[in-house]
Amino acid sequence: MSKFWNPIVRELTPYVPGEQPREQLIKLNTNENPYPPAPGVEQALRDYPVDHLRLYPDPEATALRQALAEAHGVELDQVFVGNGSDEVLALAFQAFFCQDKPLSMPAITYSFYPVYCRLYGIDYRTLALGDEWQVPLEAFSADSGGVIFANPNAPTGHGHGREAIAALLERVRDCVVLVDEAYVDFGGESAVPLVSRYPNLLVTGTFSKSRSLAGLRLGYAIGSRELIEGLERIKNSFNSYPIDSIANAAGVAALQDTEHFEACREKVITTRERTRRRLSELGFEVLPSQANFVLVRHPRVDAAQLFAGLRERAILVRHFNTEALRDFMRISIGTDDEMDSLIEVLESLCG
Amino acid sequence: MSKFWNPIVRELTPYVPGEQPREQLIKLNTNENPYPPAPGVEQALRDYPVDHLRLYPDPEATALRQALAEAHGVELDQVFVGNGSDEVLALAFQAFFCQDKPLSMPAITYSFYPVYCRLYGIDYRTLALGDEWQVPLEAFSADSGGVIFANPNAPTGHGHGREAIAALLERVRDCVVLVDEAYVDFGGESAVPLVSRYPNLLVTGTFSKSRSLAGLRLGYAIGSRELIEGLERIKNSFNSYPIDSIANAAGVAALQDTEHFEACREKVITTRERTRRRLSELGFEVLPSQANFVLVRHPRVDAAQLFAGLRERAILVRHFNTEALRDFMRISIGTDDEMDSLIEVLESLCG
Repeated sequence: MSKFWNPIVRELTPYVPGEQPREQLIKLNTNENPYPPAPGVEQALRDYPVDHLRLYPDPEATALRQALAEAHGVELDQVFVGNGSDEVLALAFQAFFCQDKPLSMPAITYSFYPVYCRLYGIDYRTLALGDEWQVPLEAFSADSGGVIFANPNAPTGHGHGREAIAALLERVRDCVVLVDEAYVDFGGESAVPLVSRYPNLLVTGTFSKSRSLAGLRLGYAIGSRELIEGLERIKNSFNSYPIDSIANAAGVAALQDTEHFEACREKVITTRERTRRRLSELGFEVLPSQANFVLVRHPRVDAAQLFAGLRERAILVRHFNTEALRDFMRISIGTDDEMDSLIEVLESLCG
Repeated sequence: MSKFWNPIVRELTPYVPGEQPREQLIKLNTNENPYPPAPGVEQALRDYPVDHLRLYPDPEATALRQALAEAHGVELDQVFVGNGSDEVLALAFQAFFCQDKPLSMPAITYSFYPVYCRLYGIDYRTLALGDEWQVPLEAFSADSGGVIFANPNAPTGHGHGREAIAALLERVRDCVVLVDEAYVDFGGESAVPLVSRYPNLLVTGTFSKSRSLAGLRLGYAIGSRELIEGLERIKNSFNSYPIDSIANAAGVAALQDTEHFEACREKVITTRERTRRRLSELGFEVLPSQANFVLVRHPRVDAAQLFAGLRERAILVRHFNTEALRDFMRISIGTDDEMDSLIEVLESLCG
């Protein structure tokens, strides 16, 4: 504890990301895509005129925002981009959720949300998930300072359809509703088509999962012009140029390759369903998932013990040591071969 | 003005960066380096295994921090990196300057500092520059919530030596003193050797100027372990992975090429002194500069008029429309050819 830290810093409990190991492991712990980015990304890197790096990037990241606008059927000024969707989320918390009333979020969701609340001094309340581990949309009060949830949710994988989100938005009109769609491309239904109807809806997305670009740090938000302008005001008071020139070019290339995108996400979905069946056969309870991971628990074998046993055999999954999730492991969907190796080890550990 | 913005957003006056034009101009407005980055940067880009972009980057950016530690003769845990030094500065304001007492800064300095204060609700007071446009080190009160200045200062170009900074630190011991060394490599003297003696000293730097990598967004801070840990706590509550894998690799490559670095900065310094002489011959008052820009004013010709005349002839410089700086233009140092073109146009405008 340093006397130079201010009180906020002293009381922070930073977010703990999944381990990024240096060794060769089967890495099923941070929901990365097992397939490489679109071939156009490699081309963009190889062709980039390196001398241009002496110049500042476009502070508006117009090319990338334009490509996102086209991909999502919205206008340029309805798109905001940031250095990963974590940065976009942080700026959105700062812009919209510092309110007199508390923010509402599910009790189980992306664990970074409460961290942002502590960083910005935002009061929040959590709502228990429903019987089928779903986000309790009906329980979000219209009298909130804001509403946030991931859809599909993490680490459960459950997703609500667009009509359910629309029903929430019909009811909650006076605060920002942020739908974090980091995982939507693996079988969820995007709320983006609703942004034209609901000026308080902000949808965030990322290139880290379905675009196989976690290493490049690209995230975005789509919403009404007034919400995007609010984000721009914060961003331009924080960091004028968050998207570097290379990331800008590579992101555009990734968005242009619809075929690669579709093929990879279909492979992930197919492998997920195959993995679910095989884990069920091993006796696991496997929550239905619209994401690139599954949340599982075994009726007899302790999750912490399974996590350690897998780690010993060079397979890394995620175990959250919280009361609600202690019995579960979250397993990212890798290639079929990787999942075969996982199943084989689990067979020996649970047999 | 949106009802969804919180009061902070409503009252922000975002920073306005220099124009980033699309046309072909002689661009002397944002202090970019006229020379390309080290050849190793191109190699790092061409060789980067693009498939790895599917994985998250090292959240600690260890390779880059290690290379910076070696370049500056400090330990790994005395180095913090961020998405451009603007991000590093923002996080430092949030970590150290949100205090009961006001922050002290020069009345003329990097214009982003007051913007951060508004973003984080930090009270600040400004101190007039001295007779020779120097930062008034002796006027900073030991009873401040923090002290910040650029050294060399922007947009004046004046720099203090290390002993003057040490004298300040002997006196101001109870708050963080942040020395922003964005321009130090063009003739200034770095305060980094003082960090081992003064736990409240934080020095920031950037790859955007002397490393010719403005397009890649890399900045850093060097200081005591307790200050670096304070920054890490904020960063890990904001964005776990701010440095992408490509920037990490390219930054390391840039730091390894000392020869290229020295050659480019010497060329810039030589061109700056040549430019100063020629501008003086044209009747301009040219402030002495330890940076890659000069601040100049003409005794008879209006700066706004000169700015417009240059713009018409496809030369872009910076004019700040503030009371203190209205009479001046800030001119970044380009190649000798670029400066010859500038002088030629100014001859016709001032003749």
